[in-house]
Amino acid sequence: MTDTTRADGRTADQLRPVTIERGWSRQAEGSALISFGNTRVLCTASFTNGVPRWMAGKGRGWVTAEYAMLPRSTNERMDREAVKGKVGGRTHEISRLIGRSLRAVVDMKALGENTIVLDCDVLQADGGTRTAAITGAYVALADALEWGRQKRFIGQKATPLIDSVSAVSVGIIDGTPMLDLAYVEDVRAETDMNVVVTGRGLFVEVQGTAEGAPFDRSELNNLLDLALGGTAELAGIQQTALASSALGIEG
Amino acid sequence: MTDTTRADGRTADQLRPVTIERGWSRQAEGSALISFGNTRVLCTASFTNGVPRWMAGKGRGWVTAEYAMLPRSTNERMDREAVKGKVGGRTHEISRLIGRSLRAVVDMKALGENTIVLDCDVLQADGGTRTAAITGAYVALADALEWGRQKRFIGQKATPLIDSVSAVSVGIIDGTPMLDLAYVEDVRAETDMNVVVTGRGLFVEVQGTAEGAPFDRSELNNLLDLALGGTAELAGIQQTALASSALGIEG
Amino acid sequence: MTDTTRADGRTADQLRPVTIERGWSRQAEGSALISFGNTRVLCTASFTNGVPRWMAGKGRGWVTAEYAMLPRSTNERMDREAVKGKVGGRTHEISRLIGRSLRAVVDMKALGENTIVLDCDVLQADGGTRTAAITGAYVALADALEWGRQKRFIGQKATPLIDSVSAVSVGIIDGTPMLDLAYVEDVRAETDMNVVVTGRGLFVEVQGTAEGAPFDRSELNNLLDLALGGTAELAGIQQTALASSALGIEG
Amino acid sequence: MTDTTRADGRTADQLRPVTIERGWSRQAEGSALISFGNTRVLCTASFTNGVPRWMAGKGRGWVTAEYAMLPRSTNERMDREAVKGKVGGRTHEISRLIGRSLRAVVDMKALGENTIVLDCDVLQADGGTRTAAITGAYVALADALEWGRQKRFIGQKATPLIDSVSAVSVGIIDGTPMLDLAYVEDVRAETDMNVVVTGRGLFVEVQGTAEGAPFDRSELNNLLDLALGGTAELAGIQQTALASSALGIEG
Amino acid sequence: MTDTTRADGRTADQLRPVTIERGWSRQAEGSALISFGNTRVLCTASFTNGVPRWMAGKGRGWVTAEYAMLPRSTNERMDREAVKGKVGGRTHEISRLIGRSLRAVVDMKALGENTIVLDCDVLQADGGTRTAAITGAYVALADALEWGRQKRFIGQKATPLIDSVSAVSVGIIDGTPMLDLAYVEDVRAETDMNVVVTGRGLFVEVQGTAEGAPFDRSELNNLLDLALGGTAELAGIQQTALASSALGIEG
Amino acid sequence: MTDTTRADGRTADQLRPVTIERGWSRQAEGSALISFGNTRVLCTASFTNGVPRWMAGKGRGWVTAEYAMLPRSTNERMDREAVKGKVGGRTHEISRLIGRSLRAVVDMKALGENTIVLDCDVLQADGGTRTAAITGAYVALADALEWGRQKRFIGQKATPLIDSVSAVSVGIIDGTPMLDLAYVEDVRAETDMNVVVTGRGLFVEVQGTAEGAPFDRSELNNLLDLALGGTAELAGIQQTALASSALGIEG
Repeated sequence: MTDTTRADGRTADQLRPVTIERGWSRQAEGSALISFGNTRVLCTASFTNGVPRWMAGKGRGWVTAEYAMLPRSTNERMDREAVKGKVGGRTHEISRLIGRSLRAVVDMKALGENTIVLDCDVLQADGGTRTAAITGAYVALADALEWGRQKRFIGQKATPLIDSVSAVSVGIIDGTPMLDLAYVEDVRAETDMNVVVTGRGLFVEVQGTAEGAPFDRSELNNLLDLALGGTAELAGIQQTALASSALGIEG
Repeated sequence: MTDTTRADGRTADQLRPVTIERGWSRQAEGSALISFGNTRVLCTASFTNGVPRWMAGKGRGWVTAEYAMLPRSTNERMDREAVKGKVGGRTHEISRLIGRSLRAVVDMKALGENTIVLDCDVLQADGGTRTAAITGAYVALADALEWGRQKRFIGQKATPLIDSVSAVSVGIIDGTPMLDLAYVEDVRAETDMNVVVTGRGLFVEVQGTAEGAPFDRSELNNLLDLALGGTAELAGIQQTALASSALGIEG
Repeated sequence: MTDTTRADGRTADQLRPVTIERGWSRQAEGSALISFGNTRVLCTASFTNGVPRWMAGKGRGWVTAEYAMLPRSTNERMDREAVKGKVGGRTHEISRLIGRSLRAVVDMKALGENTIVLDCDVLQADGGTRTAAITGAYVALADALEWGRQKRFIGQKATPLIDSVSAVSVGIIDGTPMLDLAYVEDVRAETDMNVVVTGRGLFVEVQGTAEGAPFDRSELNNLLDLALGGTAELAGIQQTALASSALGIEG
Repeated sequence: MTDTTRADGRTADQLRPVTIERGWSRQAEGSALISFGNTRVLCTASFTNGVPRWMAGKGRGWVTAEYAMLPRSTNERMDREAVKGKVGGRTHEISRLIGRSLRAVVDMKALGENTIVLDCDVLQADGGTRTAAITGAYVALADALEWGRQKRFIGQKATPLIDSVSAVSVGIIDGTPMLDLAYVEDVRAETDMNVVVTGRGLFVEVQGTAEGAPFDRSELNNLLDLALGGTAELAGIQQTALASSALGIEG
Repeated sequence: MTDTTRADGRTADQLRPVTIERGWSRQAEGSALISFGNTRVLCTASFTNGVPRWMAGKGRGWVTAEYAMLPRSTNERMDREAVKGKVGGRTHEISRLIGRSLRAVVDMKALGENTIVLDCDVLQADGGTRTAAITGAYVALADALEWGRQKRFIGQKATPLIDSVSAVSVGIIDGTPMLDLAYVEDVRAETDMNVVVTGRGLFVEVQGTAEGAPFDRSELNNLLDLALGGTAELAGIQQTALASSALGIEG
Repeated sequence: MTDTTRADGRTADQLRPVTIERGWSRQAEGSALISFGNTRVLCTASFTNGVPRWMAGKGRGWVTAEYAMLPRSTNERMDREAVKGKVGGRTHEISRLIGRSLRAVVDMKALGENTIVLDCDVLQADGGTRTAAITGAYVALADALEWGRQKRFIGQKATPLIDSVSAVSVGIIDGTPMLDLAYVEDVRAETDMNVVVTGRGLFVEVQGTAEGAPFDRSELNNLLDLALGGTAELAGIQQTALASSALGIEG
């Protein structure tokens, strides 16, 4: 791995400072305010006993997600999607990615007929909002599942969590593969990849896009190496957050 | 004024603890994360040089506001307005109220052809979200105007701020007029009033609604007394916040 | 009260000529075409046996309202909200105000599981459309309730009407408080207030807005005095209209 | 022609009573409140100097129309299209029909670069709303053109009106062709036809639909005979209305 | 009938080459790719056992249609209606016409509580898309009904098809009535008429519009003569298509 | 690579039969009806001289794409997105993928200020619609660029095409990696990956998703091997199609 120093002083394989304020919201069954550097995402998990009608009677649960950005989370103010009257393509795409990523670590049978909605609202954006959202949503999800277990909506023995999950972006900038791109790096990246990985190191999603020049097999391999390193580190941070006592959660 | 103690231990004429984290956002020209007890609203002010086309050439500026609630800011998750494809009536109404309230203290001539958009996003709701939004938006607005002055988009002499503005809710519960209602109080109030007052103690908006029984002239007067007391206190808190150095603002 | 003469020759505390054509519509269970001077609003009340599903089984009724303006009710043609694909903020706000105002005088228990929808369509606008709408909607509502009683959807003993309700606008123009503003007055008003009052003289809504300069306590009191005078007069006109035999109602 | 008596006592070839209150609106450049029996449509014509951008610079004008029904113009209340967020197929279809019908009698060159929007709002519906709308809209159009001529937006010599235009419905009920169907007749008609005819007796639109059994050539001919009789009578009523002095029009 | 030769060499009373690829879709219960010259429309019929809830329990079926154009079916690309977020007036109007035309030849009692949706998607447009759609949709409908009979969703004895149905456009160009207008002819037509006729020669719809000058009774008659000749020919082509073995249908 | 035989008799590394009807549309500047087995997508390329306003004056072109499915392209009829009034998340996501994929092989400088819109409409769906769309859109794009060169909207020397591009799906079914999944395979796949590759064998997009169990590094590598084989074959088929003379293109 290269030692190139970046604008913010990181090495190519270094994450930005990551913080997780678990239990930030007093209302939600699970919540986390996660920061990847200046990127801040408020993740809440809403637990509802029961499933949408089209799923009822199958003994299986449902996990879904919605992602959005506050209008002034970005450098230039964006119009609100509610005001425009429609959800944009990028928003849809990221919401779907978050939902798939979290479902990959939940045993829907063990969840039973319960629904969890993960809301990931970007309060401040500086690159990597979708990967921060997935990483924070996992913490909110874990707390919401524990809430459901304590309320006896979920069986007491088997936990619905099969594994943990986190995500990180990687990219090639001036020919150098780098981990966890900040916004200024992201716009310059020739290739941009978001990788979602379980706590055991298995891939849930690999989404690589040539923004500039197409990439070859060895570049792809270098990026995957970086991503596996980053997500392993994030898995540890998640574990630490979940081991401590949360802000808004009464013992 | 009565001494009735409330669920949270306050007297009838007591505000909840109010905090203002000025400069919470690194992106916006002005911002404040304001709390009225458990109600938390992120207010950002976006300054744009220029005005909408229909206003151009008149030498006057424009101030407008948008209010929204995060889906899980409330006790039960609400559907997103962006997903529903339309902005609801209550949202519209509050956005318009905030805009009018802030415009009341801005000299549009002195602002010149500049536009300020105030975004008030409720992160956590426990009653009084619109009054917290107005109170916080004023702080964000003041910083955005200062930013515009430093960037020389605004003339250096006269400040566009005519006065300060804050807001508070009052209501009658079990016959007793009370200040700054929390959610559990709000749902029980027979009469609910939102009052917007300038730093000099003049009314900008008086919106009283009989939720239960209609009210008489003396009840109205008691509520206005309470509101004037509360907004005077809020004006002091705003002044203190603006006198200190802000979080995200570089000297 | 001042004697200032206005553009249309009225004194400051004088209503415009008010007419109510009760039973204008042959289709609706109750209706009134009301005029406040050149402002004309067609109010219909649609009575449905039953309530929306989320309210069923509680033995209580529901009253709601929708307000709209014909595209050429105004001096310049406005685009239709149906064509724009969304209901505007002002429309929403007024619809909600009308609904709240009428609900304030209906005993929902006595109404039983019945729904009344009030449609207030402005055919011609010259200021005060929302106050004319509330005043006319009350007449339509009273007839619809009588229709429901005759059809035995409503119990025969207790009437669901607790009181009557009417509304009027007041405002300060060139320092003078005035009653029932016409459009040319409304645009010049420094302060504009809509006041909804029951037949017994109690407040249902007080909505005062500083359009120009903020207002003080004594100005507020003057405006409330004017409004109470105007609504008392309107209550009398409503009573007269309801005492006579209606146009479209067969004995 | 048969002598069959109808529910309302008319013969098969008889129009319902037709009234035209010309100049009903004080705001519009032309207007007419037209009744075909209990069907009442408020037609306004809005004259704007200039044309939409895509038409500019060709020296030609534009005439268009919008049709809508008030929610309680019908026997059962309908939801508002603005609330549903979209204009329905039937509404679209009728708006387009009205626009085409009126354009057929306007010389767009003589109109010059001016736009006329015809709004036809059904206040009460009892069959034949689209034909009443066309017939009333012609009167509103004629007055708006005269207004434009007086304001010198239109050349003084040639009038843009080539001819007059009116419309009527015809249908076959229990084998008998009938003129100007009321709602109770319309729902029973096997074949329903709307015919738009100029003052000179030429066809602008012929829209025949087999609601029940398909129809043959001789039935079609009988219906056209009836329609030509009815529209000739309507042309006379229009002429009379335009010859008298209008309500809202100052001499 | 005149012998005028047209741009594509046809006589005034000649159809363009018509082809029907029956069973083009492997998915639909009935389908046809129909061409009227360069106009190509893919018609599918989707058979569902059951009817919409508001129709249930009456022992009657339902047939409806949706028409749309691919964005580049035309000479200049059009925006997609899905992207614009609403269905346009013309699209609505044609969808309704197709639905009515097909319902005219179906016995809803014999269909029983089954629903058929006809989708007519224009792949390439060169005039007459709605008439091609009706003509092709009939073939798709016939196959879907046969599928329903084989699946025993429809009674085995009486067929729900009362008659066949086809449609053609006619118009007057430079004073000459012509059959089956291609796009270049359509834009020049003074009068344009779409006529829907059953196999037995009865009218289902007659929609004539004066695009240029209004038309008289004898012109109308000439157009109807042409249309009856054209639809008789189309009925024969439909019959031939339905007699042969279809592409995608397994014996 | 394994020799497992599939439902349709293919080996694991075998594409379905691929056909490209180049120049299928007479209207579009470039077009191709592409089949991957029973999946059929109509791809058109619309060439417009000029770019959207926000891009003007930079000497660079723009390529974008829209994907949609006909309502009965699938086994069960889907509602039209135009009727639902919004474009779904999956549609948005695929449209964006196609656009990015094609832009990766176009030199925007050499394209100059011209816009190409690729419309990919799925006429029949049997798995792999997005990969067939990308592969077919490339052919349509190549013809549209040639059209632009002949019309002299594009410089004559350097071609804007940097490389060709095609796409294929791969997935793991019962533990076996397989190429070009048909619908019945797709729903059973544990892992599903869409890979977009240039003619030179470089990656443009790699989108792998664990639908069932997460996947490890060696599974990922096997899937990439298969995809590179498939896209190399598709590149050859594209080349052959472009070398032959097209259907609708006049020499």
